[in-house]
Amino acid sequence: MNDSEQSGWSDTTIDDAQAQRNPEVSRDVARIKQLRQSIDNVDTAIVSLLAERFTCTAEVGALKARAGFAPEDKEREKRQSERLHQVAVSAGLDPDIEERYHEFVVTEAKKRHQRIADAGGDPGALGVSA
Amino acid sequence: MNDSEQSGWSDTTIDDAQAQRNPEVSRDVARIKQLRQSIDNVDTAIVSLLAERFTCTAEVGALKARAGFAPEDKEREKRQSERLHQVAVSAGLDPDIEERYHEFVVTEAKKRHQRIADAGGDPGALGVSA
Repeated sequence: MNDSEQSGWSDTTIDDAQAQRNPEVSRDVARIKQLRQSIDNVDTAIVSLLAERFTCTAEVGALKARAGFAPEDKEREKRQSERLHQVAVSAGLDPDIEERYHEFVVTEAKKRHQRIADAGGDPGALGVSA
Repeated sequence: MNDSEQSGWSDTTIDDAQAQRNPEVSRDVARIKQLRQSIDNVDTAIVSLLAERFTCTAEVGALKARAGFAPEDKEREKRQSERLHQVAVSAGLDPDIEERYHEFVVTEAKKRHQRIADAGGDPGALGVSA
């Protein structure tokens, strides 16, 4: 691949026509497509698991509202963080990504706990299983 | 549970001592603990899957950098969004949560693709498998 081709591709996306003119790029494009299939499969699994997670947290939210417990539990969050950090290290995931994941789900769960509490403990207030 | 107990709990977290004084609250606390175990199991699965996902995207980033393709691919993102929306609806997950998940992983992957491109296509630039 020469410099002018290189600069021509640097702001473009995967392109089958360009790939066919270069066997090495063709192999790379085939491998990218294979990896994208794996990424899509992982996303399907994660979105399905998030549905389970938010079904669980909706029930926790309803039980907390009924018992009068606060939507937030700092001690629980701290224990979760420490545990998930270890899971990330064992799995070879950048702990920064794991922290962002945890922050995302805890923030969403707490928002929903508050909405359930405001609706007098009715998880139906969420409209969906989340 | 009377009103004064209710207000005493409204800013507190799960408390075994308080729970033991009220059988209904005791049952709720036991159920919350059970749900938290499920939530922890789901988190372990998701963090492990995120490790796989970012291993795949690191390889995509290295291949894109080698072929001179851009780190970003708007068409791919659009197709992913539409597909994941359907997965979320089928799974009973609030599509708002699925959109935030997708935004989170795409943003992190693109940041890492750029770092790999800046390092001349070396995924080792990330230091970890992400």
